[in-house]
Amino acid sequence: MEELKLKEFLPDEYLTLDDFLAEAYPADIADFIMRLEEEEQEYLFREKLSLPQLAEIISHLDYETQHYLANLLSDQDISDILSQMYSDDAVDFLGSMPVGKVKNILNLMRDQKASELQRLLGYDDESAGGLMTTEYLAFYSDLTAAEVLEKLRKISPEAEMIYYIYVISRTKELLGVLSVRQLLAAQPDIQLKDLMTEHVIKVEIDLDQEEVAHIFAKYDLLAVPVVNKKNQLMGIITVDDAIDVIEDEATEDIYKMAATADIDTGRLLASIKKRLPWLLLLLVGDLLSGSVIKSFEESLQTIVALAFFIPVLMDMGGNVGTQSLTVVVRGLATGDLHHSRFFRHLWQEVRLGIIMALILGATISVVAYFWQGNPSLGIVVGVSMFITLLAAIIAGTSIPFIIDFLGADPAVAAGPFITTLIDISGLFIYFTMANLLMEKLI
Amino acid sequence: MEELKLKEFLPDEYLTLDDFLAEAYPADIADFIMRLEEEEQEYLFREKLSLPQLAEIISHLDYETQHYLANLLSDQDISDILSQMYSDDAVDFLGSMPVGKVKNILNLMRDQKASELQRLLGYDDESAGGLMTTEYLAFYSDLTAAEVLEKLRKISPEAEMIYYIYVISRTKELLGVLSVRQLLAAQPDIQLKDLMTEHVIKVEIDLDQEEVAHIFAKYDLLAVPVVNKKNQLMGIITVDDAIDVIEDEATEDIYKMAATADIDTGRLLASIKKRLPWLLLLLVGDLLSGSVIKSFEESLQTIVALAFFIPVLMDMGGNVGTQSLTVVVRGLATGDLHHSRFFRHLWQEVRLGIIMALILGATISVVAYFWQGNPSLGIVVGVSMFITLLAAIIAGTSIPFIIDFLGADPAVAAGPFITTLIDISGLFIYFTMANLLMEKLI
Repeated sequence: MEELKLKEFLPDEYLTLDDFLAEAYPADIADFIMRLEEEEQEYLFREKLSLPQLAEIISHLDYETQHYLANLLSDQDISDILSQMYSDDAVDFLGSMPVGKVKNILNLMRDQKASELQRLLGYDDESAGGLMTTEYLAFYSDLTAAEVLEKLRKISPEAEMIYYIYVISRTKELLGVLSVRQLLAAQPDIQLKDLMTEHVIKVEIDLDQEEVAHIFAKYDLLAVPVVNKKNQLMGIITVDDAIDVIEDEATEDIYKMAATADIDTGRLLASIKKRLPWLLLLLVGDLLSGSVIKSFEESLQTIVALAFFIPVLMDMGGNVGTQSLTVVVRGLATGDLHHSRFFRHLWQEVRLGIIMALILGATISVVAYFWQGNPSLGIVVGVSMFITLLAAIIAGTSIPFIIDFLGADPAVAAGPFITTLIDISGLFIYFTMANLLMEKLI
Repeated sequence: MEELKLKEFLPDEYLTLDDFLAEAYPADIADFIMRLEEEEQEYLFREKLSLPQLAEIISHLDYETQHYLANLLSDQDISDILSQMYSDDAVDFLGSMPVGKVKNILNLMRDQKASELQRLLGYDDESAGGLMTTEYLAFYSDLTAAEVLEKLRKISPEAEMIYYIYVISRTKELLGVLSVRQLLAAQPDIQLKDLMTEHVIKVEIDLDQEEVAHIFAKYDLLAVPVVNKKNQLMGIITVDDAIDVIEDEATEDIYKMAATADIDTGRLLASIKKRLPWLLLLLVGDLLSGSVIKSFEESLQTIVALAFFIPVLMDMGGNVGTQSLTVVVRGLATGDLHHSRFFRHLWQEVRLGIIMALILGATISVVAYFWQGNPSLGIVVGVSMFITLLAAIIAGTSIPFIIDFLGADPAVAAGPFITTLIDISGLFIYFTMANLLMEKLI
């Protein structure tokens, strides 16, 4: 394999590929690998990286590269790698493999880890259970500070997050939490139960990942314990996973608002499947707009100037509606806005909408008058604009609230769909008004 | 003040307001306060909450509520509160006050803290310096593990983040880092310089906050040290602040893409200022679309059916362009996409675009033919659609890359503006083609 070619992508501070692989952070090595062609990746995976190195790198690779790597390696190698990974990362890696392979691999692993992974695989990917790791620190409440510190000295490298220490009963119920900070400052012979905070911020195992992320953002936590219905400690979620969720959820919302789905991976067929169905749906909507125009064919035949204002009426309604809608969708996603504030928020938007619709309606009215020298046309365009904009603001504000209230994701309502709906109503209002004032327009 | 009325908003598990204020988390008390009217807020701030409680709550309040609180309190009270806050939160609070007041307050504080805050106020809000706190742990490299553990026992409550320990020279240069985990596991008499990792992930003080957030997300860090040009340790940034940045930057991008700005606070005039200017600009763009139609007035007069396809041509170009653009804007924001991949990405999009434009162009062509019974009209509409969609994909992909390359934020290009640009070109292509084929169309 031409190492020279690979070197082009190396960060400047490394002279050789071997230096880079030996010294760089796993996240940087992963970034490097993801920029390579498949044959180059294969060379690195097979010839250059040891299993312990791979164990560190894998969690930073994207789904496609993990999938490719899983196909290259033997089941035995994968099981060795998995036993060196944190359980949340291991489960993600297993998620990139076919079910049959997962079964074979788990059979090769030592019993305890395998059954742990098996259990974690059972949780919904997008729930607290799907995010959690089982490497945490929990001690019984009658241990003393000195005993726990002594244990920490020996076992700490095993746990993903040693900064919070959880206190549990003999039946694994979560009783409290303390920080290493508290432990260091404590008298050696004090028991955990007298040291811990009982007021623990925790999440249930089936909580949606977006809610989990809100809890991290709100309370500034480094980790949060996950419990089942019986309040037994099942695992912990660490803040790095919460960050990934926040980024992914924002991306998902942005994509939904543009009527595309998921991140493009450069696979042609997958990309077409993600975008084309939405476009075909929108095409139907636009043809409905067209048929509104067709149903007023005679008016248009009589006054062709009506057509000049089709773009401005269509677009401005969509723009105003999208503004209102975006504020609601994002507000609901970040938790800044809540159902309970619907009427208050709607009132704010309507008040704002009346003023903006007046200004924009008056502006376009004056423009239409001077451009076409026809005062009646000015009135038709201006009044239609006012009504359309107000309707757009009310629709843009209400629809995402309603969708959220029904339990679906408000972002799906977004952008193009509301715009198409507003287009159709706007054109209808415009031509109906023009029809009513037809005699004055001629 | 009617406590009864306030009680309506209390979470169910608290019976009285006093219970709630005594037991709830600062973040929950802040959420509660932000839902109240100003007089109710004043009552809580003046009568119910002690200065130490306020010090804990303030960082969770939004800008407006911080501003309102600063107006209620005396300079002396504020200076007492500030001395109990972490310096990054204190600086944010000072940022909500007028310059004169800040000066008075800093004069009332003890010298060291005041000059620290003064210095922090000098950094750009959206840079590493603006995010960092000066409460961190740093020790000289010749101290032993036992000495440092002994110090930690005494000073840890002061520092915001004790989980990383920074190692510095006598001139404050950053030499290395170690975790409390490493310290606990170490031999008591080993010196920090033999224990630390020299390969520290750090950021320069003027780095943009978005880059800072990327570093947290990539390397899964809990805190990152901030250094000046001389590599002297100036402060640290903690992961909770990185989370806020990630959420805020995503919100900002989403708002820009909908041509609105910043979060609405319900202040009418402020909201109008944020939305109306964009709308007026877009109005001008739409009038340009209208004048394209006007310049083909005669063709339209002859074949009124041309107007029926204005909505579909305008909308589909915008939709397709927005999809391409969204993928680029979000990819550049999260770091998944980089300048260097422009041509590769453009090629992917064009390949995808050709297929989608063929399918959509053929569909609309057939629809136009059967709807209007005019094969030539079908050809005009279909071919215009194909050209417009392809142009939309190329523009939607290239423009954000170009804006990013010029050093501006690609999100400003987004949504409505590209759409308006595509509208104008799409209409122009459509009517030009119609004109060329006029004889066949009649």
